[in-house]
This record gives sequence, C-alpha cells and structure tokens, in this order.
Amino acid sequence: MHDFFGEIDPPQRLLMGPGPVNAHPRVLRAMSADLLGQFDPEMTGYMNEVMALYRPIFGTDNRWTFLVNGTARAGIEAALVSLVSPGDVVLVVNFGRFGLLLTEILGRIGARIETVEAPWGEVVPLDAIAAAIQRTAPRLVATIHGDTSTTMAQPLGGLGALCRDAGALLYVDATATIGGMELSVDAWGADIVTGGLQKCLGGSSGSAPITISDRAAEHIGRRRHVELGLRTDEFSDGDGLVIGSNYFDLGMIMDYWSEKRLNHHTEATTMLYGARECARIMLQEGLAARYARHSAAGRAMAAGLGALGLTLFGDERHRMTSVTAAFIPDEVDGETVRRRLREDFEIEIGTAFGPLAGKVWRFGAMGYNARKHKVLITLGALEAVLRAEGFACPPGEAVASALAAWDAV
Amino acid sequence: MHDFFGEIDPPQRLLMGPGPVNAHPRVLRAMSADLLGQFDPEMTGYMNEVMALYRPIFGTDNRWTFLVNGTARAGIEAALVSLVSPGDVVLVVNFGRFGLLLTEILGRIGARIETVEAPWGEVVPLDAIAAAIQRTAPRLVATIHGDTSTTMAQPLGGLGALCRDAGALLYVDATATIGGMELSVDAWGADIVTGGLQKCLGGSSGSAPITISDRAAEHIGRRRHVELGLRTDEFSDGDGLVIGSNYFDLGMIMDYWSEKRLNHHTEATTMLYGARECARIMLQEGLAARYARHSAAGRAMAAGLGALGLTLFGDERHRMTSVTAAFIPDEVDGETVRRRLREDFEIEIGTAFGPLAGKVWRFGAMGYNARKHKVLITLGALEAVLRAEGFACPPGEAVASALAAWDAV
Repeated sequence: MHDFFGEIDPPQRLLMGPGPVNAHPRVLRAMSADLLGQFDPEMTGYMNEVMALYRPIFGTDNRWTFLVNGTARAGIEAALVSLVSPGDVVLVVNFGRFGLLLTEILGRIGARIETVEAPWGEVVPLDAIAAAIQRTAPRLVATIHGDTSTTMAQPLGGLGALCRDAGALLYVDATATIGGMELSVDAWGADIVTGGLQKCLGGSSGSAPITISDRAAEHIGRRRHVELGLRTDEFSDGDGLVIGSNYFDLGMIMDYWSEKRLNHHTEATTMLYGARECARIMLQEGLAARYARHSAAGRAMAAGLGALGLTLFGDERHRMTSVTAAFIPDEVDGETVRRRLREDFEIEIGTAFGPLAGKVWRFGAMGYNARKHKVLITLGALEAVLRAEGFACPPGEAVASALAAWDAV
Repeated sequence: MHDFFGEIDPPQRLLMGPGPVNAHPRVLRAMSADLLGQFDPEMTGYMNEVMALYRPIFGTDNRWTFLVNGTARAGIEAALVSLVSPGDVVLVVNFGRFGLLLTEILGRIGARIETVEAPWGEVVPLDAIAAAIQRTAPRLVATIHGDTSTTMAQPLGGLGALCRDAGALLYVDATATIGGMELSVDAWGADIVTGGLQKCLGGSSGSAPITISDRAAEHIGRRRHVELGLRTDEFSDGDGLVIGSNYFDLGMIMDYWSEKRLNHHTEATTMLYGARECARIMLQEGLAARYARHSAAGRAMAAGLGALGLTLFGDERHRMTSVTAAFIPDEVDGETVRRRLREDFEIEIGTAFGPLAGKVWRFGAMGYNARKHKVLITLGALEAVLRAEGFACPPGEAVASALAAWDAV
C-alpha cells in the first residue's frame, strides 16, 4: 500500500448480468458536479426537480415522490419499517429470492408474516392472492414487481383494488423494473413503490427512488412523531406506534423533502445528481420508446440464446424484458464460461441463487446496456466461448436470430 | 419541466459551514469512473483496498473496517442497532445536538437510555462519565467525538479503559472529525467508530466509514444470524437477539466484506470510489500534515473572527479545529448576513440549532476547504458584509490576524 493503491482505473467491463449494469456516461459525468449545501436554494431546487422527474417514471401523481439515501434495499426497508408495526399481519407475494428478502426484513420488524407463493419460474395468480387476502386480513400486502432471481414479472393489475377493498395497503418493490418496464403506480393502486438506480435506470447503486400515496402518508403520519430530545420512557410503551428506525422514518424524510425542510440526514448530493440525470435521460428518450427498447433487447436476447441451443427458464408469458435466464448445458461448466467471458471479452453475465444456483445463467440488457450492439456482442462472445468449451452451437444463428427479433413487433 | 430542467450545473459555492463542504476535485473525478459488477475481482479488490486505507485514518488495526452504504447517520444507526438489543442500558455522553440524536436512535431500538450531560459549549469531564458508568452499569457507552452543533470535541483518552473495566462497549461518532482531527480508535479502546465523507474527508455525503473491534464483532456474532427464508415464528421470540434491521445488520455486512462475499445489498459503487479517493488523498498528504492543516485553518478562522470583533462560542480548550462558532452581533441580522455572503460572494456559512439558533454562526474549514486562501477569502467577505450591514469592524485586521495565526505553532 506504499503508493496507496493507485488512481481509480476500473476495467471497462460490459455488464450484461441482472445488475448492477454500466451507468450511462451522462450519469457518471453528472456525479462529478460540484457539491452544494443541503439547504442552499439551488440544492432544494434540485430536490424539487427530482420529485417532479420521478412522478412520470413511477406513473403517479403522488406528491411524495423522492429518494431514500441508500441502495435499493434501503428503500425497501424504509417502506416496510415505516408502514408496519410489530404484530401487524403482512401478506407477502413470494415467487423468488426477493420475496424471501421481504419476509426477512419484515421478520426483523416483528410483523406476523403470511405468504402466498409460486414456484420459482412462475408468478402468483391474482385469484390466489385474493384468496390469501381474504384468509389473512393483512394490514399490508407486499410484493416484488420483477424478481431478477427468477426473471418473472408479477402482474399487478387489479391488486390495488383488492387491497383497498380489504383495507390493506400495497407495497411493490420495483428495483429491477423501474426504467425498463412500465410502472403504473396510480393505476395499480399501490401505496408505496420503491426502486434503485443501478438496473434499468442506468445509474449507480446508492439511491432509492420512492413514491408514497396520500393514504400511506396519512398512515405514516398517524404513527407517533418523535422529536429530537425525547427520552427513553417516551419510546418504550411498546404500542408499536413509533417507527423503529430514525434513518428510515419516512415521516421525517417527508418533512425534509417538504417546504418545511426539517433537517434529517445530509442528502447524498452526488447520488441525487446521478438520480436526477437518470430521470432526465429517461424522460428525454420518452417512456414508450424506453420500454420498447427494453422489450426489443429482451426479445433479441431470448431469441439469440434459443438459437444457440439453450433452453430458457421460466414461464415465457411473464418474463421480465430486462433479464433472461437460460439453463447451463450439461456439456460445459457454468463458472468457466463466465470467467472466460469476463477475462477474454470483458463481459459479465450473471450467476443464480438458491434452487437455480449452478443451473442457469442470467443475461441482463438493462438501461444504457439495453442496446442492439451490446446484445449482439454478448451473444457472439457467448457462442465463441461455448464452442471453445465443447458445446456445439449452430454458427452465426444467435446473432442473426437476435437481429431479426430486435426488429420484430 | 418541458426540457426536464436542464443539465446539472450547480453554482460553484465555497462551502464554509459545518458541512457538507466542497469535495476535492479528485474525489469528484473518481466518482465518474465506470462501474463494476459487485463480485468482480476488480471490485472486491477495491473493497479490500478501502479496508486497508481506512485503518490508518481511524488509527486502528481492526480487521473490520469498511463502509456502510448511506449517509453518516446510516453508519450511526448501523452501529447502534447491531450492538444494542431492546432493554439494554446505554449511557449517552450528551453535550450537543448529535448526542440527542444518539438518544433518539436508541429510543427507536428500545434501549434503556441513561445520559451524562454537559451544557452546550462544554464537554463532559471524564470523572463524570466514570461516575455515570458506575451508577448505570451500561451495556454500551455512546458518545460523539466532535459535535458541530456546539463545536466541542469530547476528550476520549481513558474512556475505553473505563468501559472495558465495567464490561461496557464504547461507540464513538466521528462524523465531524474523521479526516480533520486525529482518531486513535485503538488507543481510545473504542469498539465501533463511524464517520462520513462530507466533512473533513472532503468527499460527498452518502457513505459511512466504520471500524469495529474484534470484541464488538464477537458481540454481534452472538446475536442470532438470520438466513434468508426463515419465517416469522423464528423472529418473534422477543429475546432481542435478532438485529432489528436487515440493511444495517453489521453481521451480514461483515460477511459481504469478508472472503465469504455473501450477497447483501449491491455495494454503492460510485460512493466507494469516492471514499477510496478521499482516503488516498489523505494518506498521500500524511496524517500529521493533514491534522496540522486543519489546526492552522481553525486557528486562523478563530483569530480572524476575533479580530472582526466577534465573540467566539464555547470552551476554547475543547474547540474542534474544523468548525468555529461566533456570536452574531446585535447590530446585524444573522440570516441577512448569510444571504449576502451566499448571493454576493457565493460563500456559505452555517446557521445553528436548538439553544444556539439565531445566536451564533458556524464557520467550517474542513477537508479540501481547510486552506489558507479559503479562510482569508471568507473573513474578507464577512468583513465587507458586516460593515455594509452597519457593524463596525477594524479594517483589514481579520485577514492580517488570520495570516499570522495560520503560521503560528
């Protein structure tokens, strides 16, 4: 460490896994802008702009649309700890690893967790969720939108109405879909939806966009407001009204993002600049064009992988457009293929978790990387490595099929 | 919003308040580097480098020295929620706003909070802390190192030994001192110390360096490890062993930063690049030179403010070197002076909280801004504004006094 490890100089990998992916160069440049004081009018102006920019991205008119300062997981925990008191019944729609994560976070909060599940590679039918809501009478229904562990996207139409009829709130984790698949928060009737920058928004991990319905904001407002300087006996009554975290207390964070500008933490300025630029790039492209580009990339990737002779994983009616899983052929070692792609081609593809570990690869085409040439380059490199490893692929079919699929409507 | 608010283009303010301050340009440039996958060997290599770089900055050999992904407050909450179970007695050394913040966070966790206090502008004598430890038999003693709300730096020598003798752990929040005043974590005998980038380290808010003693790591290890997929009945036994947060579970985050590389969140890559560069700049400058520079800047600022005819706040034996508070003269309106400094000179100085609100200004000289010309420019501008607002200052004295004080040893 005598030279303190040298200047930052990462290799220029092409990140074609389930995220994080390469940030858009404009986002990286935005993150090198000079800092501002947290109550500088220019800074609070940028905060207000971020609120306005993320509303169309979430598909909402929600006033409370802002950033949680942490990775996507911070947004999830902020939503759950602010909505759920110990002992509350929460119904988790669980169809992959990130549904399990919801139960894990909710367990820490002391929720009474009920689940309605689908096997990995499937989604949960709406009528099964409806029956589970009837059975469990939850305070909150919590679900993932797109779960990268299985590549499945849960249909959400009608779910908000079911929740509303049952007096439940609805939380949706859209980390893997925001910026790549259409979010319709108001049409879904979702109460809190959170995301992350590092996938289809083409940014860097460390900031979590969030949107909160008026109904959820009122619920949070009814939980006790805690002012600096209160003492232990005012917290320990055990009625569960006080939100169990200061950092993730969305009531306090709303006060910070409101005209009140009550001091909470120091806003992560550089990440806010990045989040703002992610949103600008997306709105300049246009929502419809953005989603069509991700669809084309997903279609091309799937067609190319199929043309290589690989079998795709999961229910094709519900596949996310931004990430595709394919079974690893028996003839090759999955990790050797990944290593050769990384070392020889500087391309990263994804491994898998839990029941799929060692069985599938995951191929992402997200955000700035949901582009034709990146899909084609990935498929061409994969074909070369597979052939070198002894798996016979039809020469040139993958790229040709992907090209045809890109342009198909 | 028809043009989506335009490119990021913040005014180039000189941030001479108590933080956040201007980031070093090298840090801003490092944050525009290309991203990497979170388990890429180049990425995990950078993570290991960060661990090595922050050990000398903390003054520790602690293996567990890494980053929490969030602002400085995230580091505080991660430390407290990972160390403290509901019902644990925690003694808070409280001499300002950030001591109150510790009690606020601990209250959410369900700790039984005891305090030992000093009036704002003073520190807590070691014998008072010793007596409070005897009286309260805490599981944890928690203190701020430098509290920017009062500009006081709490002496910490001997405190670790007192805690150890009493079987207590010691937590220190060094957000406002890391990078500017010497941290001697091992010599103090502190068990967890956390910081932030946005003050004397000259970085951007959003990453919290942390160091954890083996003793504290063992304590955290004894708390129940929770694996993904466990269900509610395994959480709800109420023995307080499970850490109440997933995102801030330092046991899981240690597993992520260890050779195990167990997946937790996606590391905030850009912030890690920035944190790494902050540390490199500091170690290249040299610790002694770094602290001497902050001392000179604090000395110069204090001398200059005094020469303007302002009265400094707080016990001068315990003033932080990086932030100085001065009483607002009766002849002027504090907010008008701040506004004119910002609008006419693009210089930001700090307001104050709680009992000091409206009574003092706070002047920081932190990190990249702890430089002679920035102190002189600030004093010169302040002199001009004060005179324009009707407060008679001796012409030129402030800059001359600051110059002389800068070079004094």
